[in-house]
Amino acid sequence: MSMNSFGHIFRVTTWGESHGPALGATVDGCPPGVPLEPEMIQVWLDKRRPGQNKHTTQRNEPDQVRILSGVYEGKTTGTPIQLMIENTDQRSKDYGEIEKTFRPGHADITYWQKYGIRDPRGGGRSSARETAARVAAGGVAREALKALLPGLQIKGYMTQMGALHLDRDKFDWNAIDQNPFWLPDNSAVKEWEDYLHHLRTKEHDSVGAAVEVVVRGAPAGLGAPIYAKLDTDLAAAMMSINAVKGVEIGEGMAAAGLKGTENADEISMGDDGPVFASNHAGGILGGISSGQDIVVRFAVKPTSSILTPRQSITKSGDPIEVVTKGRHDPCVGIRAVPVGEAMAACVILDHVMLHRAQMGEGVRGKIG
Amino acid sequence: MSMNSFGHIFRVTTWGESHGPALGATVDGCPPGVPLEPEMIQVWLDKRRPGQNKHTTQRNEPDQVRILSGVYEGKTTGTPIQLMIENTDQRSKDYGEIEKTFRPGHADITYWQKYGIRDPRGGGRSSARETAARVAAGGVAREALKALLPGLQIKGYMTQMGALHLDRDKFDWNAIDQNPFWLPDNSAVKEWEDYLHHLRTKEHDSVGAAVEVVVRGAPAGLGAPIYAKLDTDLAAAMMSINAVKGVEIGEGMAAAGLKGTENADEISMGDDGPVFASNHAGGILGGISSGQDIVVRFAVKPTSSILTPRQSITKSGDPIEVVTKGRHDPCVGIRAVPVGEAMAACVILDHVMLHRAQMGEGVRGKIG
Amino acid sequence: MSMNSFGHIFRVTTWGESHGPALGATVDGCPPGVPLEPEMIQVWLDKRRPGQNKHTTQRNEPDQVRILSGVYEGKTTGTPIQLMIENTDQRSKDYGEIEKTFRPGHADITYWQKYGIRDPRGGGRSSARETAARVAAGGVAREALKALLPGLQIKGYMTQMGALHLDRDKFDWNAIDQNPFWLPDNSAVKEWEDYLHHLRTKEHDSVGAAVEVVVRGAPAGLGAPIYAKLDTDLAAAMMSINAVKGVEIGEGMAAAGLKGTENADEISMGDDGPVFASNHAGGILGGISSGQDIVVRFAVKPTSSILTPRQSITKSGDPIEVVTKGRHDPCVGIRAVPVGEAMAACVILDHVMLHRAQMGEGVRGKIG
Amino acid sequence: MSMNSFGHIFRVTTWGESHGPALGATVDGCPPGVPLEPEMIQVWLDKRRPGQNKHTTQRNEPDQVRILSGVYEGKTTGTPIQLMIENTDQRSKDYGEIEKTFRPGHADITYWQKYGIRDPRGGGRSSARETAARVAAGGVAREALKALLPGLQIKGYMTQMGALHLDRDKFDWNAIDQNPFWLPDNSAVKEWEDYLHHLRTKEHDSVGAAVEVVVRGAPAGLGAPIYAKLDTDLAAAMMSINAVKGVEIGEGMAAAGLKGTENADEISMGDDGPVFASNHAGGILGGISSGQDIVVRFAVKPTSSILTPRQSITKSGDPIEVVTKGRHDPCVGIRAVPVGEAMAACVILDHVMLHRAQMGEGVRGKIG
Repeated sequence: MSMNSFGHIFRVTTWGESHGPALGATVDGCPPGVPLEPEMIQVWLDKRRPGQNKHTTQRNEPDQVRILSGVYEGKTTGTPIQLMIENTDQRSKDYGEIEKTFRPGHADITYWQKYGIRDPRGGGRSSARETAARVAAGGVAREALKALLPGLQIKGYMTQMGALHLDRDKFDWNAIDQNPFWLPDNSAVKEWEDYLHHLRTKEHDSVGAAVEVVVRGAPAGLGAPIYAKLDTDLAAAMMSINAVKGVEIGEGMAAAGLKGTENADEISMGDDGPVFASNHAGGILGGISSGQDIVVRFAVKPTSSILTPRQSITKSGDPIEVVTKGRHDPCVGIRAVPVGEAMAACVILDHVMLHRAQMGEGVRGKIG
Repeated sequence: MSMNSFGHIFRVTTWGESHGPALGATVDGCPPGVPLEPEMIQVWLDKRRPGQNKHTTQRNEPDQVRILSGVYEGKTTGTPIQLMIENTDQRSKDYGEIEKTFRPGHADITYWQKYGIRDPRGGGRSSARETAARVAAGGVAREALKALLPGLQIKGYMTQMGALHLDRDKFDWNAIDQNPFWLPDNSAVKEWEDYLHHLRTKEHDSVGAAVEVVVRGAPAGLGAPIYAKLDTDLAAAMMSINAVKGVEIGEGMAAAGLKGTENADEISMGDDGPVFASNHAGGILGGISSGQDIVVRFAVKPTSSILTPRQSITKSGDPIEVVTKGRHDPCVGIRAVPVGEAMAACVILDHVMLHRAQMGEGVRGKIG
Repeated sequence: MSMNSFGHIFRVTTWGESHGPALGATVDGCPPGVPLEPEMIQVWLDKRRPGQNKHTTQRNEPDQVRILSGVYEGKTTGTPIQLMIENTDQRSKDYGEIEKTFRPGHADITYWQKYGIRDPRGGGRSSARETAARVAAGGVAREALKALLPGLQIKGYMTQMGALHLDRDKFDWNAIDQNPFWLPDNSAVKEWEDYLHHLRTKEHDSVGAAVEVVVRGAPAGLGAPIYAKLDTDLAAAMMSINAVKGVEIGEGMAAAGLKGTENADEISMGDDGPVFASNHAGGILGGISSGQDIVVRFAVKPTSSILTPRQSITKSGDPIEVVTKGRHDPCVGIRAVPVGEAMAACVILDHVMLHRAQMGEGVRGKIG
Repeated sequence: MSMNSFGHIFRVTTWGESHGPALGATVDGCPPGVPLEPEMIQVWLDKRRPGQNKHTTQRNEPDQVRILSGVYEGKTTGTPIQLMIENTDQRSKDYGEIEKTFRPGHADITYWQKYGIRDPRGGGRSSARETAARVAAGGVAREALKALLPGLQIKGYMTQMGALHLDRDKFDWNAIDQNPFWLPDNSAVKEWEDYLHHLRTKEHDSVGAAVEVVVRGAPAGLGAPIYAKLDTDLAAAMMSINAVKGVEIGEGMAAAGLKGTENADEISMGDDGPVFASNHAGGILGGISSGQDIVVRFAVKPTSSILTPRQSITKSGDPIEVVTKGRHDPCVGIRAVPVGEAMAACVILDHVMLHRAQMGEGVRGKIG
């Protein structure tokens, strides 16, 4: 069972509400002996933190992580690692109408119907703030991966924001960390900034986004068919992120339009093993990694918290016009980038460990 | 752990290889007292069966299911239900080169790398034949759902095949069962047939497809946030199907291009509860069903088994040109329709049971 | 997977080390709407707390529990409940030889061999202090059970301490809460106190104990054969408690000496259903509760931390004589009583929920 | 969830009823490349089979196992292994009164109350026949262990049958396989035979038993604290066997009567690592194996199917005197020996794999 947990062996349980005393992640199954200091996790939380740039909300929280267990003298012990982030912005306030109203496109209404109790403070458990706990857990996964697979890289970036698309011909891996959109094309940043600024200040609207995460350097053989396939677990991990509505591996939905001759990645023999002429598969065949770049992509819907009024109802069934005041991210997809990376890190580590369990170290079948 | 199992409470484990003695599904957690006869399962297997129409392979197998346990006097007992389908087409044959060669775009190479042992008989465990076991399990889920939620409907259909798209303006729910593509538009069937015929006989190629599954009549409240969200589990279920490369809920990847004003489904009060003006959400908000139609869509890549030669290598690393002879489905997406339905049935039943565990019967929060 | 979690649906993960910053329990799957305040949990922690009486260690800690999530306005929301107990006695100290020495009968040596890293601060994760987190989780389970099964009682007591045995002829249910041994016989308390006092002050030794937990008022039908039988899960729950070496249901090990005529609990019909003439079964038949008192018993070994010297080795393999100074419980079995109760509460709640998932409310088969 | 499954990574699901068409085990997670032929499994089934000697029931079934999946050319492939045993003794018969009556001490009544449907054919799912599937799965585990830990031995034997106890001073490891009781003392066999013969033919009664299983040669480090401790999982595995009422590790319940000075196993340094002066711990400290013999013991209650009449009720609540005709084992504990061995094999393999997942190969902490 896994209502609030994910992972087979490296198992993460997130807990906490947006405006409760604290939130965090219970990380079980981490290998022992992994160097771990709060700063190694903090760096990823800072990347995700609201208020980092003018395109995300200015909630003024340090998001400081504390490691409460599982680490002794700077190394993991193999026991559960408790990561806690205290909510400093936990002011008591009058939620008034919000508590009685359902925002169109928001989980307000379904949480109410399911649980019959609803934490209106910032969306409670359905808040995107829960993703901070994932990012913290992802920080642990990255350190463990560093120990197990030194060459591995995990990198997320935006490929679409509303009407704007990444120009893949200008793809620049090094640009990703150099701009607030984690856009692999610095030349487009100005246009993206203007678009978002206009959307927020003039249109009082929000916009969706697409995020791509690439795992480079993962070994062949990861993935446990049939129902713990690597792509299955990646799809679940990404779909579980707030506001995500679609997940793709490699060609993704476009595969529906391809012919077999176009889609097959031809193989030749290189110095270090098989070499693929293309990567339509996104690095995964039959649910198992092939050694190519693993490419997963997901779409984030536009936030439903906007200044433009929408029709809705109250708990008592009365019509009401909903306007969400306060400052909200016009594009939550931006902050989804580090979250997607964190989920990928957790899934990859989990599969490295799962592979080890059944297969021992390395791959079993040699080629060449 | 779940290498070959899925579901939290209604738990399905599929087993078996394409050309072994038999394959099947072990179904655990089914409620007791559900009427179940082999015929109730057989009907769905017949729908999926190869050789049903000229667009799918003519493997001449009856795919006859046997119920080996869990049923007494025509009713489930609450104990594990073992469903077995014997492979009658299990002839011993010389696989020759196939055993030593990796087909581009196929799981041949990754299974070999992972396991170091490979069952070449029809792809072994990576064969689409495994999905027959899912369809059988789905048949059980459908009967249990019939008992628990009498009004529920689950329907799958194709929305794309290569260059051809379903014209949503002509959408006809009743047409779905009337043509070999499960296409909700009878007027397009001729064009789809010609397209596929040409592809197979003239181009010696295969093609991808998109399949949509709709669950109509599901109650609000299904889904267990955060990591057992209904959409998370649907995404995992669909991505675990052979050849699937993308999964979408509601707007799916198109959500990346929408604005908040466009995406929010406005709410009003109807006679029987909340009414939504649109369904961009695909019936799921915050991972919980809203009572609207649940809409999930997935893309199936074109099969890699084609007559047109592709470059590849052998186990020893030597270059080889691969041509897959024998008759193969030019569009495996067609047979993915009943598989998608079966997976949806299993996931919905599982979540009905999971909801019941934590919440008891029905929804907790009333509206109006 | 469940390295640090237990429960199928009501799922508890404990975390934390004896002398780290904090320890606690992540409780997932609790039904929503259950009244929950810290005081409802604190009362059980106080019962378990060291220093409560002269027979347990005087570690001076308030063991104050904080609820960090999952509760809104005094009621559970259905989301994860994080329970944290800060370690106030977390002084930095020189562990000196302890860190290099293996205490005979202690987990020192196996933790070292397994993990290659060892938290010497009070035993780290292997400390009995971990059970405080279980007791806290048990407090949540009790409140949920109160809501679901108002008449249910869970009561633990000692039946043996070294050479002393409970005289079952004098069994007094009401006495249990009236003495420091939770002994159902006040007349024996003086003898137990003298025995323990002599053991500690004169013999410098420790002693084992047997604890029995009774669940009264549980409905028939709980338990999910074959591998989630109620007795299976109770056995696992109790065996997972520190220092427990044996678990019994009903007659337990004595069943090996019984004949069929002696062991069968004869049945007659009472006003409210079946009535059993005896309870050799301990309330469980075929892994399912029968409606009788559920009786589980476990043995706790004597602590290995004693003042009398024992032969052992250091990490480098050198012989050393080990004496554990500082004040330690001469009978850890006393504090195991509330822990056993807590585990029983969690298991029973979990099975109530699991039963509900598959079967709905109540039992399916009527008698009479 | 695990209603009919056990194991974390090496995961076994048993299915089938006593008199249905077949029963078996779905074994998931087995390492690939393990040599496996039906005969390697059959040998253990033959050991357990009724009718093997005059002290067990004479049900005339060959219990022939078939491997339906997961093996290719005599080696496991890493995919699910389906083991099926067809029930040849599946005659349709009139169960008459049995179907309406509850046998005292039998799961009849609780299955009825829980499920409201009951398979009277030989006890359905609650029949000891289910253990044949466990023994088959254990056969797979043994072969995998042979590959991973060549020196490992797993041996079960009886230590008690009613009033008779094994004389530990005469313990003879080699005698175990030489007599029908798997008794490590050939000199006592005659007495045991007479006792059982008298019980069956003269007293028309049955009797309980205690079985001990020893795992010799297991490495230190197995076990995943806190809730997947090796002893926790062994306790659950044994308690899940039909009719088992108690489980002990090492000293077991007797630990309640020991002092700390008596219980601690003193340690010295040997040529190959630590040497323990005694084994009160049963080879497990803090839930982790120490490298000593792992010793687990369980009590099996006497079967409730006896010729001597017992008072009971029918479904309609009427009083009835129950006598179970037909030939039944007077001591089901005899056949529990190979079952206990099989469960131990599965648990040990599972923990070897789980250890590998988190820790890689071998132990982490060196001594000396």
